[in-house]
Amino acid sequence: MSSLLSATLAAITPPSATARAAAADRLDRMTKPPGSLGRIEDLAVTLAGIAGTCPPPLPDPAVVMVCAGDHGVHAQGVTPWPQEVTGQMVANFAAGGAVVNAFARAADVRVTVLDVGVAAPLPALDGVLDRRVADGTADLAVGPALTREQVVAAVEAGIAAVPERGCVLTGDMGIANTTAAALLICAFTGADPDRATGRGTGIDDATLARKTGVVRDALARHRPDPSDPIGVLAAFGGLEHAAIAGLVLGAAARRIPVLLDGVSAGAAALVAAALSPRSVAYCVAGHRSAEPGHRLALGHLGLDPLLDLGLRLGEGTGAVLALPLLRAAVRALHDVATFGDAGVTDAATADAGEQV
Amino acid sequence: MSSLLSATLAAITPPSATARAAAADRLDRMTKPPGSLGRIEDLAVTLAGIAGTCPPPLPDPAVVMVCAGDHGVHAQGVTPWPQEVTGQMVANFAAGGAVVNAFARAADVRVTVLDVGVAAPLPALDGVLDRRVADGTADLAVGPALTREQVVAAVEAGIAAVPERGCVLTGDMGIANTTAAALLICAFTGADPDRATGRGTGIDDATLARKTGVVRDALARHRPDPSDPIGVLAAFGGLEHAAIAGLVLGAAARRIPVLLDGVSAGAAALVAAALSPRSVAYCVAGHRSAEPGHRLALGHLGLDPLLDLGLRLGEGTGAVLALPLLRAAVRALHDVATFGDAGVTDAATADAGEQV
Repeated sequence: MSSLLSATLAAITPPSATARAAAADRLDRMTKPPGSLGRIEDLAVTLAGIAGTCPPPLPDPAVVMVCAGDHGVHAQGVTPWPQEVTGQMVANFAAGGAVVNAFARAADVRVTVLDVGVAAPLPALDGVLDRRVADGTADLAVGPALTREQVVAAVEAGIAAVPERGCVLTGDMGIANTTAAALLICAFTGADPDRATGRGTGIDDATLARKTGVVRDALARHRPDPSDPIGVLAAFGGLEHAAIAGLVLGAAARRIPVLLDGVSAGAAALVAAALSPRSVAYCVAGHRSAEPGHRLALGHLGLDPLLDLGLRLGEGTGAVLALPLLRAAVRALHDVATFGDAGVTDAATADAGEQV
Repeated sequence: MSSLLSATLAAITPPSATARAAAADRLDRMTKPPGSLGRIEDLAVTLAGIAGTCPPPLPDPAVVMVCAGDHGVHAQGVTPWPQEVTGQMVANFAAGGAVVNAFARAADVRVTVLDVGVAAPLPALDGVLDRRVADGTADLAVGPALTREQVVAAVEAGIAAVPERGCVLTGDMGIANTTAAALLICAFTGADPDRATGRGTGIDDATLARKTGVVRDALARHRPDPSDPIGVLAAFGGLEHAAIAGLVLGAAARRIPVLLDGVSAGAAALVAAALSPRSVAYCVAGHRSAEPGHRLALGHLGLDPLLDLGLRLGEGTGAVLALPLLRAAVRALHDVATFGDAGVTDAATADAGEQV
């Protein structure tokens, strides 16, 4: 195994139990009823454990890393969108005109594209990193999508793109990439293709039936071994899923949170978890996508999404929408007064006439 | 009926169908699959309709108006928290030390307290508006909580506190106020007290049984008439619920969105809806509280909450957490390129070889 990947896997340690306990204690002394912030309390504890300190730093600067790649399986007619849309959308990201750009502007998040394999090479564009491993994947319906070397190169492109501090948000762009995502989800969760394959951009019944058939046949052909995650990615791709798995591993090694977007991120996180089960503890699930496989992936990972708004766009949009919740959780740990500090009577001790 | 309230009710018109249609059309031409932003698309359409223009303005400046009041029913032992905590927490808000302050800091929201009836008068505090109607409500277990004149004064304090532009977020502070909220919810939805009464700050089984009994007895005593919303508020209070109802009506009259927090806001919005059914169209439900009556209130109003994170604090915390979603929805309408603008091929026309 290549040195960057193996060094990254070796660097991943569990979150800090001490920092988690300190956050939980702080939350219980704050001027509020115990537990009254619900999942924001769990999030605050998670972020303290990730950083290894309480209070943890704010999740800034925040960057959404949109991993882009094309898919040879497009030739099987799994989507009505032409393959060139992947590259056109990368240009749209660079120009600031996509939904993820608008959401990122509203949330003070930087957008960077990681081109790990758009089919047609692009001109140099601001905010687009050329980390091309191939001109898209090969068609998984007729052979392996990638070589093992290509998989490792794309994973390492993701690892290398993780910032030193702040927070990394996952994004994806790749026409036909929900087909690869469904296959990864089937491979790692054991789910049936009927349950894991969805309508992606909104395909019709005939296209969905064709797509599900492609997934079923590819599983039978490749017989993926979930204990060999590099091999699973080589069978199915995509390059962007490999890069996102790298983002997860790199963030875990750097002890910063990785905020996952939708079904592509869920599939990629399954790969990362198979390479390093500890990496899951550094993931925060931003939202639950409308794509059915996403629920299966999150369930397998034991992650509960923060938002459930019926999004099914990708690009990192759901992760960007969730980021303000991370900031709020951290700000609470920094700023909220305790009962003692604020001179507020605590019900837990009020019976004894005590003001703590 | 007093002139400010009646003028406000008369000023409330339906949202603009033209602006809603323009937003829906814009969303369909954006560089994304149709419908792929899920509930964010509904939110964008709602906000355009409220403003009467597409794209609508950003929901800024944003202010969370924390309406504070005390409750005579505290004497019935419905909570372990001493009544003086209401005033202590108002001082905490003014000092910037409460959870809502931390969340508001993270989201660039101003916090203002509207004191409509904390039991003990407070010293002058920065960011606290003295709009006191009474030294708390009377005990609803032994008689009416308020006079009709007091109710109207508190509603009008809310109306007058609505800013001219931007967005108003509802907040509440009042020890024992989930008892009054449960009563309002029973009165307007017809729900049984067992279903509408919850644990509030986290009361134990014995206290919950006592609280539910207080709610049941008060319903039997006052026989509230939902077609007389001022009378229902007079029976049960609270002053902060009346003020929040005023925020809803005032925002509707000014055509700005009112972002609702939890169960207190839900109960107050039922009052506003009974006074002006049109006012509901100006409400956005920020989150669903863990308090069971909130689900009943939102269901009756036909509002679907944006967040569901198990919060049960009040103060406006859930509304503040949801505000970034409104900003994202509006930014998308402003910024996202159409297929034609961006030179991206649209699947809807790709079969004809057309690039729109």
